[in-house]
Amino acid sequence: MTETAVAARERREARMQSMLEELYPWLRSITGVGLRRTLARLAAELPGLEMRSVPTGTMVYDWRIPREWRLHEAYVNGPDGERIIDVRWHNLHVVNYSVPVHRSMSLQELRPHLHSLPDRPGWIPYRTSYYTPSWGFCLAHEQLELLREGTYEVVIESEMVDGSLDYGELFVPGETDDEVLFSAHVCHPSLANDNLSGVIALVELARTVAARARRRFGYRFLFAPGTIGAVAFLSRNRDTVRRIRHGLVVTGVGGPGVLHYKRTRDGAVVDRIMERVLGEQGDHRMLPFSPDGYDERQFNSPGLRLPVGRLSRLPHGQYPEYHTSADDLSFVRSEAIEGAVRALEAFVKRVEGDGNVLNVVPCGEPQFSRRGLTGSALDGARPGAVAWVLNLADGEHTFEDMADRSGLGLGDIRAAVDVLEANGLLDRYEGDPAGATDGERT
Amino acid sequence: MTETAVAARERREARMQSMLEELYPWLRSITGVGLRRTLARLAAELPGLEMRSVPTGTMVYDWRIPREWRLHEAYVNGPDGERIIDVRWHNLHVVNYSVPVHRSMSLQELRPHLHSLPDRPGWIPYRTSYYTPSWGFCLAHEQLELLREGTYEVVIESEMVDGSLDYGELFVPGETDDEVLFSAHVCHPSLANDNLSGVIALVELARTVAARARRRFGYRFLFAPGTIGAVAFLSRNRDTVRRIRHGLVVTGVGGPGVLHYKRTRDGAVVDRIMERVLGEQGDHRMLPFSPDGYDERQFNSPGLRLPVGRLSRLPHGQYPEYHTSADDLSFVRSEAIEGAVRALEAFVKRVEGDGNVLNVVPCGEPQFSRRGLTGSALDGARPGAVAWVLNLADGEHTFEDMADRSGLGLGDIRAAVDVLEANGLLDRYEGDPAGATDGERT
Amino acid sequence: MTETAVAARERREARMQSMLEELYPWLRSITGVGLRRTLARLAAELPGLEMRSVPTGTMVYDWRIPREWRLHEAYVNGPDGERIIDVRWHNLHVVNYSVPVHRSMSLQELRPHLHSLPDRPGWIPYRTSYYTPSWGFCLAHEQLELLREGTYEVVIESEMVDGSLDYGELFVPGETDDEVLFSAHVCHPSLANDNLSGVIALVELARTVAARARRRFGYRFLFAPGTIGAVAFLSRNRDTVRRIRHGLVVTGVGGPGVLHYKRTRDGAVVDRIMERVLGEQGDHRMLPFSPDGYDERQFNSPGLRLPVGRLSRLPHGQYPEYHTSADDLSFVRSEAIEGAVRALEAFVKRVEGDGNVLNVVPCGEPQFSRRGLTGSALDGARPGAVAWVLNLADGEHTFEDMADRSGLGLGDIRAAVDVLEANGLLDRYEGDPAGATDGERT
Repeated sequence: MTETAVAARERREARMQSMLEELYPWLRSITGVGLRRTLARLAAELPGLEMRSVPTGTMVYDWRIPREWRLHEAYVNGPDGERIIDVRWHNLHVVNYSVPVHRSMSLQELRPHLHSLPDRPGWIPYRTSYYTPSWGFCLAHEQLELLREGTYEVVIESEMVDGSLDYGELFVPGETDDEVLFSAHVCHPSLANDNLSGVIALVELARTVAARARRRFGYRFLFAPGTIGAVAFLSRNRDTVRRIRHGLVVTGVGGPGVLHYKRTRDGAVVDRIMERVLGEQGDHRMLPFSPDGYDERQFNSPGLRLPVGRLSRLPHGQYPEYHTSADDLSFVRSEAIEGAVRALEAFVKRVEGDGNVLNVVPCGEPQFSRRGLTGSALDGARPGAVAWVLNLADGEHTFEDMADRSGLGLGDIRAAVDVLEANGLLDRYEGDPAGATDGERT
Repeated sequence: MTETAVAARERREARMQSMLEELYPWLRSITGVGLRRTLARLAAELPGLEMRSVPTGTMVYDWRIPREWRLHEAYVNGPDGERIIDVRWHNLHVVNYSVPVHRSMSLQELRPHLHSLPDRPGWIPYRTSYYTPSWGFCLAHEQLELLREGTYEVVIESEMVDGSLDYGELFVPGETDDEVLFSAHVCHPSLANDNLSGVIALVELARTVAARARRRFGYRFLFAPGTIGAVAFLSRNRDTVRRIRHGLVVTGVGGPGVLHYKRTRDGAVVDRIMERVLGEQGDHRMLPFSPDGYDERQFNSPGLRLPVGRLSRLPHGQYPEYHTSADDLSFVRSEAIEGAVRALEAFVKRVEGDGNVLNVVPCGEPQFSRRGLTGSALDGARPGAVAWVLNLADGEHTFEDMADRSGLGLGDIRAAVDVLEANGLLDRYEGDPAGATDGERT
Repeated sequence: MTETAVAARERREARMQSMLEELYPWLRSITGVGLRRTLARLAAELPGLEMRSVPTGTMVYDWRIPREWRLHEAYVNGPDGERIIDVRWHNLHVVNYSVPVHRSMSLQELRPHLHSLPDRPGWIPYRTSYYTPSWGFCLAHEQLELLREGTYEVVIESEMVDGSLDYGELFVPGETDDEVLFSAHVCHPSLANDNLSGVIALVELARTVAARARRRFGYRFLFAPGTIGAVAFLSRNRDTVRRIRHGLVVTGVGGPGVLHYKRTRDGAVVDRIMERVLGEQGDHRMLPFSPDGYDERQFNSPGLRLPVGRLSRLPHGQYPEYHTSADDLSFVRSEAIEGAVRALEAFVKRVEGDGNVLNVVPCGEPQFSRRGLTGSALDGARPGAVAWVLNLADGEHTFEDMADRSGLGLGDIRAAVDVLEANGLLDRYEGDPAGATDGERT
């Protein structure tokens, strides 16, 4: 790597670190002020990012958009009047979407509303109750065990108001109607790996994509509340999501572990490309599809079957810090996010550069001599590679397919593509085959 | 097995034994009185079984329905006037479809008309000449060798009359237009394994099927004379046979040997289901398709390619008693038939219960909370199984496919299906994919 | 082999040898007198062979037909006036398509126009410059090294005139519209293996094909200048080339090495048939497709994807004599060409005899008895083979497929086909599946 590249990388890591530290303390949820403030902050980084608002009560496929949750205060005072829990101390202290409470109660009465992790006595768990009216507090188990009998004052000043569910969408147009989707859930409060790491990775990726001189694909970046946000997006874009040729959900890329790629339901091209990308980046793991996880569940539902995989590091549930206060700023390293961004950039480069060329002289060979395309006019391209590219430039072979079949290197293939394209013998193909899934899409 | 189940099984075995003993002595052929009497007897067991009659001379595909064969007497008297062969002693003594004879002749003249089995000197062979006018007698080789020179009186009082070829058809309707076919040839006289065993197995299976509370498929039971009966059925039901999603020819299930399943020509779903069914029942053998055997030949002919396999025990030609008087009541055990009936019942259960569910919320996941479908409302179903079933309930996956892909047990899958179906999240699918052959049907 | 067969073979080898010796000395190119004279000579052997002429300047796909090259004289005189190179001595002495020159020049000036093979100092190389105006001489390197300083007289009396590019086409019609293509490039001067051997092999094959009593396929023999001739043929027959079901380019079959078959781009049926044919003929090699080589490049271009493979012995570039004066009459053996002709004949026999039969009684079995088709009427055919053939005669199985699936020998299959066809139970199938490529054709 050049010194300039190292410097650029360090600058980006510093920028990501700074964004992490800024966004981490905000109280987010699937609706409300914290979410909107986060989206506005992302829009400041990414001009063109638009906020979409879906009113409370709207049906999005099978889901109904809930009322907005607004939290003003949430605390518990102990028998001696001392403050023992306060959401101001940590966003995870309150069960997300808690209904209002303003009562005094005994410890026995309070106890079922207190959540802790006996196995991890120093950590605060993350709990939500978006769709079932409920309230509660989360705290370290070691604190819970010190609570003594007496009367507790419990206050949750929250409101459930008609409002909207919001998500952010940035579209960077390309030369064709085909699209690539990147999606990161943006609803979690004060959890650094899950999913500020994914959000921030996509911010940086979006910068890179927008800076490209040319884009064959349009790129859509989705920052939406988990599950219902993805469902809302899908429901409101029933036709346009058909343009998605490749997609990736990006989550948990700042924590420990090598990069993990989770395949699509039906084995899309994105799986093969990501396998190659990660193979080149070093140690990694490929995971089979399963209908759990993050929003890849929605994208891969049987009525949609979109070609959307998932990039993460250690998957949720495979690290104890998952959904606890231990998923904090010390748990996440900007170098780890940087590694994911680089993989995503390599993916874009590959998707942009790879395949989708059509031989414009498909019947018989071109007459090179007539076109002056001999010797040095080939610009270093190997004649064998030129022949292979022309033979396989049928809209059905990626460059890597060409390299595989010919036994030539990808560099030879690309050099041949370049000289052929420069001489008008190849057209970029805008049709369907490029990113079609291996299976059928309905 | 509960005591009740044991008792029910013993009752059924006794009932089958009694039916075997009743039907065994009757002189059947591909047409005529004995065949009609047999069909009438089956109709007494199976209300709704209808007799179809195809007039002599009718073309059914490539075949012409022959005249009916009526046999009044068939015997040979020896040089001393003593009766040496009489069809009243054994139905196999006369070549089935023998033309009339009433002559005295030398042993030399008679000899070509006498059929025996030198290797099995005590057994009478079974011979027919349905389509080529001929006459003859079958006898034990040890008796043949004792015949001495002299004048024999040969009498066959038979008629070839215009009449019909008859077959029996029972249709037990289901909730969809799709059908399952079971077929047993019913033409053989005094041969117990081939094929009273198959006929009787289907009688019992039809009872079970008719007693089901619900049937997704309609079930068609065919009791027809071999070859020409199946051809007649097929020829007269050219459109409706397209509804057959799965089918089985059932023959020779009362003799020795483990159950043998013969695959369909093009690898239909019935093959996979039967492989699983027999695998669960214990030792068994899977046989490749071949264009010989029984009526599976007709069902699998290239213009039809119906998904019809065959269930038998030791295949014809692999036991010496085949087509001889040794295929008698002592050769067949009702326990063996019972084993086949149980396999067929397991097949029906599987076909009825398996797969063909459609996620009614195919785009995105259902909102379980809104539907109250959480916790105990899942009725013990595992959330992971629920997610997998919803993801794969696309009309293309059987329950076993779901179990295979998810790595979950079939029980988990079924439990998830049950709770989802009960809550209106799955529909039974009535379309084509269910029973479509793996290959293409013309 | 019978003595007659041996005699016939020897006669044919003698005939091929004589043709080789006759055609070898002629100065051919991709256009012009020598080419037309060669085609006329082939037409004398093959009545019906027609000469096609494409005028100078015509576009054939991406190519423009060049002017004709006419060479009257080409020689170099040395400093002492002695003749040191003369095309009359060897056709390879002049760079094919050299423009006119009539000058005196120093050795230094002449030197860049002299081509030799330092590694093979005794051989004259073969050089062409069809599409780039240029001139030159080829000579043995050992001669080149003896040239001394001085003034050389360089004379090339050539003309570039408006005329035509010519190729020869023989069509031997068949009973269906489907065609088999055989193609040999005919442009090379005084090179025996490349490609008089292929031209002469096709002459003999055409005789055999024309002598067949029946031909299911039409056979098209193409004798065309390399590359541009094939492109011209393809361009002028855009619709009719779609009828090509199987094709072979035949080149370099008279030199050393076992027969080599180069597969088609998309894996056509011809590949499987040739693999079987060569397997029976003994040692051979199968080569993967690549977009280099001979006119298979044009036939397999992505817009055409015709099912055309290539038969040769040692491929070009794998023998040092390639494109040198050492590819002379001593390098080629008529026995080697004979071996290729026999393989091609076996291919034709197989293509003609194999598969493409349709059961005319596809639903159910035929009633053999009604048709008298029993016992000796089966003419020795095995009933099992008859059943298999009827079952698989669906237009999708070749005879070898039938043999493979049934486990019977090809002889049994053919015997059954013969008796069934003779009795009107099989039709030859004229449709598409027969020779369709395994992949799709656009």
